[in-house]
Amino acid sequence: MPLRQLRKEVFRANFMLVENGLVVLTWGNASGIDRARGLMVIKPSGMAYQDMRPEDLAVVDMDGVVVEGNLRPSSDTATHLALYKAWPDIAGVVHTHSIYATAFAQAGCPIPCYGTTQADFCPGDIPCVPPLTREEVEEAYEANTGKAIVRYYTERGLKPNEYPGALQQCHGPFAWGKSPVDAADNALILESVAKMAILTRGINPGVRPVPDYVLEKHYSRKHGPNAYYGQK
Amino acid sequence: MPLRQLRKEVFRANFMLVENGLVVLTWGNASGIDRARGLMVIKPSGMAYQDMRPEDLAVVDMDGVVVEGNLRPSSDTATHLALYKAWPDIAGVVHTHSIYATAFAQAGCPIPCYGTTQADFCPGDIPCVPPLTREEVEEAYEANTGKAIVRYYTERGLKPNEYPGALQQCHGPFAWGKSPVDAADNALILESVAKMAILTRGINPGVRPVPDYVLEKHYSRKHGPNAYYGQK
Amino acid sequence: MPLRQLRKEVFRANFMLVENGLVVLTWGNASGIDRARGLMVIKPSGMAYQDMRPEDLAVVDMDGVVVEGNLRPSSDTATHLALYKAWPDIAGVVHTHSIYATAFAQAGCPIPCYGTTQADFCPGDIPCVPPLTREEVEEAYEANTGKAIVRYYTERGLKPNEYPGALQQCHGPFAWGKSPVDAADNALILESVAKMAILTRGINPGVRPVPDYVLEKHYSRKHGPNAYYGQK
Amino acid sequence: MPLRQLRKEVFRANFMLVENGLVVLTWGNASGIDRARGLMVIKPSGMAYQDMRPEDLAVVDMDGVVVEGNLRPSSDTATHLALYKAWPDIAGVVHTHSIYATAFAQAGCPIPCYGTTQADFCPGDIPCVPPLTREEVEEAYEANTGKAIVRYYTERGLKPNEYPGALQQCHGPFAWGKSPVDAADNALILESVAKMAILTRGINPGVRPVPDYVLEKHYSRKHGPNAYYGQK
Repeated sequence: MPLRQLRKEVFRANFMLVENGLVVLTWGNASGIDRARGLMVIKPSGMAYQDMRPEDLAVVDMDGVVVEGNLRPSSDTATHLALYKAWPDIAGVVHTHSIYATAFAQAGCPIPCYGTTQADFCPGDIPCVPPLTREEVEEAYEANTGKAIVRYYTERGLKPNEYPGALQQCHGPFAWGKSPVDAADNALILESVAKMAILTRGINPGVRPVPDYVLEKHYSRKHGPNAYYGQK
Repeated sequence: MPLRQLRKEVFRANFMLVENGLVVLTWGNASGIDRARGLMVIKPSGMAYQDMRPEDLAVVDMDGVVVEGNLRPSSDTATHLALYKAWPDIAGVVHTHSIYATAFAQAGCPIPCYGTTQADFCPGDIPCVPPLTREEVEEAYEANTGKAIVRYYTERGLKPNEYPGALQQCHGPFAWGKSPVDAADNALILESVAKMAILTRGINPGVRPVPDYVLEKHYSRKHGPNAYYGQK
Repeated sequence: MPLRQLRKEVFRANFMLVENGLVVLTWGNASGIDRARGLMVIKPSGMAYQDMRPEDLAVVDMDGVVVEGNLRPSSDTATHLALYKAWPDIAGVVHTHSIYATAFAQAGCPIPCYGTTQADFCPGDIPCVPPLTREEVEEAYEANTGKAIVRYYTERGLKPNEYPGALQQCHGPFAWGKSPVDAADNALILESVAKMAILTRGINPGVRPVPDYVLEKHYSRKHGPNAYYGQK
Repeated sequence: MPLRQLRKEVFRANFMLVENGLVVLTWGNASGIDRARGLMVIKPSGMAYQDMRPEDLAVVDMDGVVVEGNLRPSSDTATHLALYKAWPDIAGVVHTHSIYATAFAQAGCPIPCYGTTQADFCPGDIPCVPPLTREEVEEAYEANTGKAIVRYYTERGLKPNEYPGALQQCHGPFAWGKSPVDAADNALILESVAKMAILTRGINPGVRPVPDYVLEKHYSRKHGPNAYYGQK
């Protein structure tokens, strides 16, 4: 895939965030990776979406050094890179401050799996990664944010392709996927299940998670070896 | 009615779900039935709405075997068929994961009839059908989902034309009607009364249902033998 | 004003309800009155907004008898007429099932005046009129709904031009004004202050109403004899 | 900058309020200042946004006397002037009754800093200024509203450029900035963080504010002397 094609897809993924109501002002960014070339394409920092053209996207190497473009890359660049480096199977990353998912992050709670909507996405609760320590913030805030997510997954045996999104406590949601567009879809799913979960608890504060066998059925019919959801 | 006409109406009903904000991504499907030919037209599985054309819809027989079209039908096909088989008077079925109705389903609560908005739709609470057993899930999840709704109605003497929508606990809303478009309207009503009910309880946790005689008046002026709502 | 002009304004007021998100499906209606001719123009019953043209509006006399048009008038016609008959200064009436105002009606609570937004509209709480008795429902439901609102105002000395909107318990909001468009604006205000009030109580369950002297200042600067809000 | 240019920017800022869903009917106004000429451009009072053209904006001197235009300026003119007079570095002011921020104002609560979204905006809670006294209301309501905000900031050592927005208790949000458009952006931020905060408390009533060192990192990376967010 030529880099121009990746630019177009990253551009598209960034606009999906706007179209799906996941960003206010400039509070979000999407990236994509060209692993063969070792290059990441990402939204420029603080740029208004309506002013952005595909050629404005920043291209950085795996150390975050700009190799193409005149604009400074997203301030979250090092977080994206940390996720790409740790997880070789992902090809797109998205960060937003979408309202409902951010509320869960601010509340410091994982999103419990209350139903099949979430079970269609991941096989359990959506993780909430604890805040960095003061030392981690001061040393390298953005890179360590990515590393904290990776460490959390590693320690609990969570697979990034099974749980393609998580909350960073006090901050907001990060999502990833097999492409930038897939990551943008996953960011929308995080927001949607967060909204459903808040409402569910409002109706029934003592609600229990979805039964295991329903969760497994839904997750496996969409993502398992014998999945039969979607087209072949 | 030629099958082409039914395709058009099912296509229209599917798009109504999008226009009315009832679906996120591909989380919804509408179908219609041609009872004379024994054929059901339904959305293809996991297909993005914006990419779908009328000719993409799947046509299946009453056993769910595809008889027209190159795409796999919705993974919920067997649920739709179970409802059509049990209830000869319905001609359209819709399933969504609309946010507020799904929240009630996840909370495991029927939607109480707090006012005339719901009384205009059905003469009481909107049913919440308990989850399938592990055995039912493993045996034939989708068909048994439809059968569970039908059994719930039969056991309680609920008539499908009086209660043209229900919640499947831990899952979400199903609606039906005398046409695909009518079923799509009913899915919108489920979502709207669910939102009103959540807010009503937030304002007054001890709220009581609408008085019986008000409920009966509203239901009968719209659906009774002497109904005077709408045009003749 | 020729009747054709009134038709246009009633048509416009009905569409404002849709544009402002106050109606789902056909759950709303606006009317206007020509007091010189003793005629009321109102939405036809149960008609989809997108299909409605100005010539579809029903024209009825003060007894509700259709004098122009081929369509049945709104089932709420008698409620509108009861308000026009009791209150000679109003020239437009609107009824909706808008989500937040209806939630307050279902909860059986007036909307407390928590701030200047509501004080700009009326000098206190927005009334919630108790449900009709069984006898009133059976005798003449729609006319008695209007009469119950009027009686409630009369008994408490509330002036319809000072409180140009109220909730009918278990049902929803009614609004009125010096024109159909003014009534439609008031219906939007009821919905907006209802939403703010729900949220306000969520943040601070022990919240107190706005101080009297702030309420009076805001109401009088917009509606008092020395009002200085708006253009001369 | 010619006055015509300021008119255009104030016009644009007023429309941003509508586009961002911050105003219902005419409940909002934006202004800008030309400090060299001692003139303020502001929305006309009570004028519908859809009818407004740039030439309808009112131009007033620093005493609020209209020097250009045929329309009465916003009834909140004196509030805007009080802020401009006290704070020489601001060049735009916005007032709205946006739903969520107004709910916090009605509840009489500052918006706690629960996460990085708010920390990107200001280094702490968003202030809630207590209501005026009866005497202040009677003497000069609008001017004293501005003075009360200024006094609150002065007494607590809050800097208007660090906290570019506040709530007036029982009333609603005021925002300001280095331009009218910047003030409009800040009004949107107030609304967004208010919504997140309400939801956050709903999920976790015992939630704690964001840790100080995370707050400082986010605020300083965007607004500190070594800020690296956005373009140079």
